[in-house]
Amino acid sequence: MAKSKKKDPPVILITNDDGVSAPGIFNLVEAVKDLGKIIVVAPDKPQSGMGHAITIGNPLRLHPVHLFEGIEAWQCSGTPVDCVKLAVDKILHRKPDLCLSGINHGANHSINVIYSGTMSAAVEAAIESIPSVGFSLLDYSVEADFSAARKYVRIIVENLLKNPLDKHLILNVNFPAVPDSLIKGMRICRQAYAKYEEDFLERNDPTGKKYYWLTGKFVNFDKGRDTDVWALEHNYVSVVPVQFDLTNYVLKDKLQKTWKL
Amino acid sequence: MAKSKKKDPPVILITNDDGVSAPGIFNLVEAVKDLGKIIVVAPDKPQSGMGHAITIGNPLRLHPVHLFEGIEAWQCSGTPVDCVKLAVDKILHRKPDLCLSGINHGANHSINVIYSGTMSAAVEAAIESIPSVGFSLLDYSVEADFSAARKYVRIIVENLLKNPLDKHLILNVNFPAVPDSLIKGMRICRQAYAKYEEDFLERNDPTGKKYYWLTGKFVNFDKGRDTDVWALEHNYVSVVPVQFDLTNYVLKDKLQKTWKL
Repeated sequence: MAKSKKKDPPVILITNDDGVSAPGIFNLVEAVKDLGKIIVVAPDKPQSGMGHAITIGNPLRLHPVHLFEGIEAWQCSGTPVDCVKLAVDKILHRKPDLCLSGINHGANHSINVIYSGTMSAAVEAAIESIPSVGFSLLDYSVEADFSAARKYVRIIVENLLKNPLDKHLILNVNFPAVPDSLIKGMRICRQAYAKYEEDFLERNDPTGKKYYWLTGKFVNFDKGRDTDVWALEHNYVSVVPVQFDLTNYVLKDKLQKTWKL
Repeated sequence: MAKSKKKDPPVILITNDDGVSAPGIFNLVEAVKDLGKIIVVAPDKPQSGMGHAITIGNPLRLHPVHLFEGIEAWQCSGTPVDCVKLAVDKILHRKPDLCLSGINHGANHSINVIYSGTMSAAVEAAIESIPSVGFSLLDYSVEADFSAARKYVRIIVENLLKNPLDKHLILNVNFPAVPDSLIKGMRICRQAYAKYEEDFLERNDPTGKKYYWLTGKFVNFDKGRDTDVWALEHNYVSVVPVQFDLTNYVLKDKLQKTWKL
């Protein structure tokens, strides 16, 4: 229908869950800053493990920050999902062409996708019909080497700007913590079935009352060669397309037969 | 394999996201208390909209509470997902046979499943191989009438105790806010594609600085008669089987063809 192609550069919203001053988001901005008009709206503090939390009972704050040269950036007092909602409604006043989240410091493969603020920001964007990608590097260190990650971020973003695929697109991209020379390429994967086996650390406060710290061991039950965990263990960049329709259709059919409603 | 059937009553873990003192959880306990050994572990304050958030940077507290006659109950300082993790690891020291979450004050149909603390607690249980059900009533009032909901909770729980179906079972059950006499029965549904159109309320604090309150209009784009929204609008109890594998398999195939890796 549209013969007059729009010439404006694509608008790319960038967020994360480690906070606006984390090295990961700096590296994400650096990787793509010449590919469109970049706007950063990210939490003012670490928000790891916030999942798809939104702020209901409290007001939110937005403050401009001067962290990225020549790029409009805001810090938000809320969760990663709040950042996406506020960015679209109060800063951009339009849908960006793409939303990028990360680069997260630490893995978001397998079941981590559910706990991850990085991925939840991407999911929120896709609910809003904004194609989105969450990026994570399997290295928690603030001194992590993002150079290989940056190379692949660029390949993926250029690809998606040329061929957006789907307005509800969500990609969960994880990078192995190895130098670029050891990375074998990208693999399209499914989410591995893995989980954490919790073992809360129990301590007593000065008055003798107990408190608990969440700790846990990651356990992968899924040896499939088509999983993200397999890909990462074999030095591939894992790319898992994600969806927000959580309906279990197999169980739906089974229930319809079993319950005979 | 097991000829000696276990005679112990099933252990049922009950949680919610409105807090341990909400009427909804009281009604849930009342509905099922004679069907097994009940343990309540729920947040000490409202945790609506917390999604799948977990508490990473802070310790957690657990306190016994005497709210339900003859039933062991604890309040937890964390999120609904924290409650499930702590209950299994530090209170039960085993997996319960079933986890029930709710009854939530307010709808968790369609996209709400993603933001809902009620449903995230159920999802967490299922990740742990504990079949689980989240219940929600389409009435925010603290004076809501839970009598019809209680009837159906009982039917569903009796059914699942007799026939557990799947260790990763998650059901998202919503009740229309109408008297029992108007409810037409239960329907197995898929999650409707609907979303919130945000319209943040903008205000100035006493120093003139802006702050924002999240508000939004629920918009349903999905007119399918097999959706939860349709069922609820037509006075059915909606039952959506939910999964935690978020892989978009359709897009996975498409990407594999398009990206030619």
